[in-house]
Amino acid sequence: MKQLYIVGIGPGGQQDMTTRAKQAISQAELLCGYPVYVDLVRELAPDTPVLTTPMRQETERCRAALRAAAEGTTTALVCSGDAGVYGMAGLVLQLAEEYPPVEIQVVAGVTAALSGAAVLGAPLTHDFAVISLSDLLTPWEKIERRLAAAAQADFVISIYNPASRRRADHLHKACEILLRYRAPSTPCGFVRNISREGQQSCILTLSELADAPLDMFCTAFVGNSETKVLAGRLVTPRGYKL
Amino acid sequence: MKQLYIVGIGPGGQQDMTTRAKQAISQAELLCGYPVYVDLVRELAPDTPVLTTPMRQETERCRAALRAAAEGTTTALVCSGDAGVYGMAGLVLQLAEEYPPVEIQVVAGVTAALSGAAVLGAPLTHDFAVISLSDLLTPWEKIERRLAAAAQADFVISIYNPASRRRADHLHKACEILLRYRAPSTPCGFVRNISREGQQSCILTLSELADAPLDMFCTAFVGNSETKVLAGRLVTPRGYKL
Repeated sequence: MKQLYIVGIGPGGQQDMTTRAKQAISQAELLCGYPVYVDLVRELAPDTPVLTTPMRQETERCRAALRAAAEGTTTALVCSGDAGVYGMAGLVLQLAEEYPPVEIQVVAGVTAALSGAAVLGAPLTHDFAVISLSDLLTPWEKIERRLAAAAQADFVISIYNPASRRRADHLHKACEILLRYRAPSTPCGFVRNISREGQQSCILTLSELADAPLDMFCTAFVGNSETKVLAGRLVTPRGYKL
Repeated sequence: MKQLYIVGIGPGGQQDMTTRAKQAISQAELLCGYPVYVDLVRELAPDTPVLTTPMRQETERCRAALRAAAEGTTTALVCSGDAGVYGMAGLVLQLAEEYPPVEIQVVAGVTAALSGAAVLGAPLTHDFAVISLSDLLTPWEKIERRLAAAAQADFVISIYNPASRRRADHLHKACEILLRYRAPSTPCGFVRNISREGQQSCILTLSELADAPLDMFCTAFVGNSETKVLAGRLVTPRGYKL
């Protein structure tokens, strides 16, 4: 039986991909994905046929990958970051029962919470929550409830999809909720274009983050009550005796 | 100036390491780490001197790495999973100011939440929280508060350090808290020895997880209110129209 690999390619550069991800891509007979992500891995499989679908056509993308694999074509569906975290693995597994049996392998990758944290220092040394501010697929009330719960219980928070043109004020609204429970001086940070050309990072306070010019290429981090800025890095201690 | 790399090696096998992590290890003049993790990467640098410290000597390990780097030895401090998530990056950055300046690079890796999720299917497709049940460095009350908050706000939860000989009942106590807010039938899973020899995985309900024989080599997953078991895999939908 031919295979369908759902591959997390990490933040972008080949440096940050796992060997397992590279092998799945170079052995595939078809590469599926969102055009930008396929381009990022094209070098690994320059002659492999490609099937891309635009943003918001995720279901069609997953169906095309399942159909190809079911027809006997070893297929790699590439996702930025991890294959699972807000990635396509869930959708493929949901749709799989409509297709003839295919062996599906999920290949984990370095998600933006990890790659962004490494750029900023070590904000995720303690319990953390990952929350997306995109309300395309999730009611905003649910997002607000999760932000409040995570802030109240003193989780470090990694924020995905902090803003887009259509949702320019989401980050501001999110920070207002966090500010009910966290000090305005709480150390925060964000990274734009992690591990790609034009990478930028910034450490700032929670009150500054509320009005910072983030876009859809950014991942943000909000410290817990113990997070500090040390020599320009965002660091959450874990309680070791120094 | 010589470098100190804090390197996340992923779950274990070289297949799951990033190229950046492999390069940092093979270029280092000294490998530091917990003995088990150093062994996992020894093949990449068979002739490089090694400095290990036992469990609970994390501070000494980080100090040794900082001292070596400050003396001009390019050093790689290896961590299982990610370098930051419950890893050594935070501790090194805290201690760094006591040593002469060293260029510190944090190299992200695939943490157990991601590698374990890939084994089970796609439980982390939606907002999630990562919580360690180890109370060596964190008061148990704080852990309980975070479990309750994450359960109430319907996060998927990835549980690190679910049990050890000294803390045999921690997972049971944690599940009791989760059961206040989540149905006993909530789909859950755990993976033992992710990507290593003897890997085992299991999908079960939250009430079954409470009494399951997990140990310190396991990572557990608790679904949110929408998580399902589909064809033997743990899947959290994200809301796409099928």
